[in-house]
Amino acid sequence: MLNIDKVRLAENTLLGVARKTDMILSNGVTKSCELWLKTENLQRTGSFKLRGAYFKMSQFTQEEKKCGVVACSAGNHAQGVALAAQQFGIKATIFLPSAAPISKIEATRQYGAEIRLSDGVYDDAYAEAREFSEKTGAVFIHPFDDEDVIAGQATVGLEVIKQLPDVDALVVPVGGGGLLSGLAFAVKSIKPSCRVYGVQAQGADSMYRSFRENERVKNTSASTFADGIAVKVPGELTYDLCSKYADDIVTVSDDETATAILTLMERQKLVAEGAGAVSVAAVMFDKLPVKGDKVCAVVSGGNIDVNILSRVINRGLMTSGRLTHLTIKLIDKPGQLKMVSAIIADEGANVIRVQYTPGGEHMDINGCFLKISMETRNNEHLERIKHVLSGNGFMLCDY
Amino acid sequence: MLNIDKVRLAENTLLGVARKTDMILSNGVTKSCELWLKTENLQRTGSFKLRGAYFKMSQFTQEEKKCGVVACSAGNHAQGVALAAQQFGIKATIFLPSAAPISKIEATRQYGAEIRLSDGVYDDAYAEAREFSEKTGAVFIHPFDDEDVIAGQATVGLEVIKQLPDVDALVVPVGGGGLLSGLAFAVKSIKPSCRVYGVQAQGADSMYRSFRENERVKNTSASTFADGIAVKVPGELTYDLCSKYADDIVTVSDDETATAILTLMERQKLVAEGAGAVSVAAVMFDKLPVKGDKVCAVVSGGNIDVNILSRVINRGLMTSGRLTHLTIKLIDKPGQLKMVSAIIADEGANVIRVQYTPGGEHMDINGCFLKISMETRNNEHLERIKHVLSGNGFMLCDY
Repeated sequence: MLNIDKVRLAENTLLGVARKTDMILSNGVTKSCELWLKTENLQRTGSFKLRGAYFKMSQFTQEEKKCGVVACSAGNHAQGVALAAQQFGIKATIFLPSAAPISKIEATRQYGAEIRLSDGVYDDAYAEAREFSEKTGAVFIHPFDDEDVIAGQATVGLEVIKQLPDVDALVVPVGGGGLLSGLAFAVKSIKPSCRVYGVQAQGADSMYRSFRENERVKNTSASTFADGIAVKVPGELTYDLCSKYADDIVTVSDDETATAILTLMERQKLVAEGAGAVSVAAVMFDKLPVKGDKVCAVVSGGNIDVNILSRVINRGLMTSGRLTHLTIKLIDKPGQLKMVSAIIADEGANVIRVQYTPGGEHMDINGCFLKISMETRNNEHLERIKHVLSGNGFMLCDY
Repeated sequence: MLNIDKVRLAENTLLGVARKTDMILSNGVTKSCELWLKTENLQRTGSFKLRGAYFKMSQFTQEEKKCGVVACSAGNHAQGVALAAQQFGIKATIFLPSAAPISKIEATRQYGAEIRLSDGVYDDAYAEAREFSEKTGAVFIHPFDDEDVIAGQATVGLEVIKQLPDVDALVVPVGGGGLLSGLAFAVKSIKPSCRVYGVQAQGADSMYRSFRENERVKNTSASTFADGIAVKVPGELTYDLCSKYADDIVTVSDDETATAILTLMERQKLVAEGAGAVSVAAVMFDKLPVKGDKVCAVVSGGNIDVNILSRVINRGLMTSGRLTHLTIKLIDKPGQLKMVSAIIADEGANVIRVQYTPGGEHMDINGCFLKISMETRNNEHLERIKHVLSGNGFMLCDY
């Protein structure tokens, strides 16, 4: 069974390998509590996963080291295993679904791991990795359901208590439960009064459901853009530990997570991935009883594809009225575009794209649509522009 | 004259006020040297500017404290002054050009400063701030050309040497020169063998030119998206110190800075503003003689408007072949769009926007343009798709 001595051993083992990541007081993220951020997105490999993978390998026999390791992951675990293996001089083979983002494949390869791309989805890559392990003797490193891996992740908890001794509550992202189970165990062992909460994505809530139904629940799908926690079923070990040591588990929507990512960028200058930002989202959107408390949210990772990040930013800009697509129905006669342009310019907005489309069959034969993308200051600013356009006889469409 | 005792006094004064920001070993940013990042973008207010403003006010007489402070800035200095004044209970009035981004105005207001928006550009706001100072007695806090302000910024140098005692060279962003002058002075005082380099934007290179021409050069304009260092003329004090203590000053292009911003986001999970990323850009693009050295680049700030950040990301995605706009000239007959779509789908790219435009006067009467925006993996992937489209008889346009 996991015990605190093993976690302390992991802490010592990780000295000089894992960074003792910074603890940063948040600014303007929430007014409900004193929110601190444990920045594991600034950990080597961009997530906490290095901790578990490295400690796991440190416990290998010489024989096991010779056999090498194999893992299956499209993201953080892959990089953690690859860097840990590189540090020990162990050969690592990582199976990934072929659709995995190039950026993550390249990052993993950079640490010297051999990459095998599997056709199909994660489950196919997983099956191939298991098969590879049986055939070659390479040790399969489970992403979460492994006592040594859990002990490694638990070191985050020891660091938090050292950095913030009077913390009232910790908030932790949950996929398979490796981080929550280890961290909750460690924190409750050394500071039982500290509450520990887990956060899942609504579309991948197996640990949340398991926690409530008092047995491991398997979801048939995992649907969230927070791919780092898109897990269908909790581990056995992790479920046992979470049900015993976590105070509660809650969920957040993908929209709430996206808002948290944008807030972390704007206010804290930190890039978080979806899986890393659910903890902050839970605090921002008042999912937890932490009013007035000193709270630490673990920002567990930052490995987000910039394509996704770009979409998150655009969505956030639109939600806050800073990027707008307006469709205006107008009669196709000279001077209309000029007039619209003049109104927008006078109001201080910045046009970034204009698109002109002839009208459909139910419109006047000379009707047309003008679609304008523009940068505005906020929702009030946008509403004023709409108001002035309407006042000048332009008809705004709802799409 | 500035002396090292004053810098040490500033260091003590700033204890518990300024964060001792993290020093992070970079990963995959450059192969030419061992690059460390001093993360002043994670400083309170999002830049190092708090240091100088706070130390300046700590030296006030009781009388001066009663009179309040006034500053002119569209960005980092405004926030630094506002927070410092809040800490001392001093009334702060900040003049900003009315076109300043709402996000920066709001951030400054949040620290309790009174905001005055001036019509016109920075110079107009500056004149109004000076006038306000004369009329009310409020102490004008210069953004860089002030010995106390410089001593405050110099504390970054003391921290770097403590965090990285065997550093060979420091690389520092330069606008008016407050950070470089203080930091170079402090570093040369305690570790003369350490080289200190300044970096400016090509479009705002007054200190670079002054350094070469051995006198303060005034540019007529400052054109760079790195607004934090868009300064037309160096300070007198800062010029004297930089010319005496800096080893060299170089420049980088806005494209190089944009690439550095994207790299810091992707590889380091850090949001840097243009002014904060020029130091990293200079190392990435081999502007400095630091091959094989242990180098520390100061990432001096992270206050970038997300609109700008979104553009930087999109540009970076396009440059690296991950976001593409293709224009295809085709004959307007049934099945063409289907065929193009099939080719793109088969090649594994992700279409995000389609736009169809009738052809111009020099084209066939039934010719048209199909503009497709899609996410691709990299430049090779993009070239393969283009190749297959051409091979199937589609004509690609160069716009």
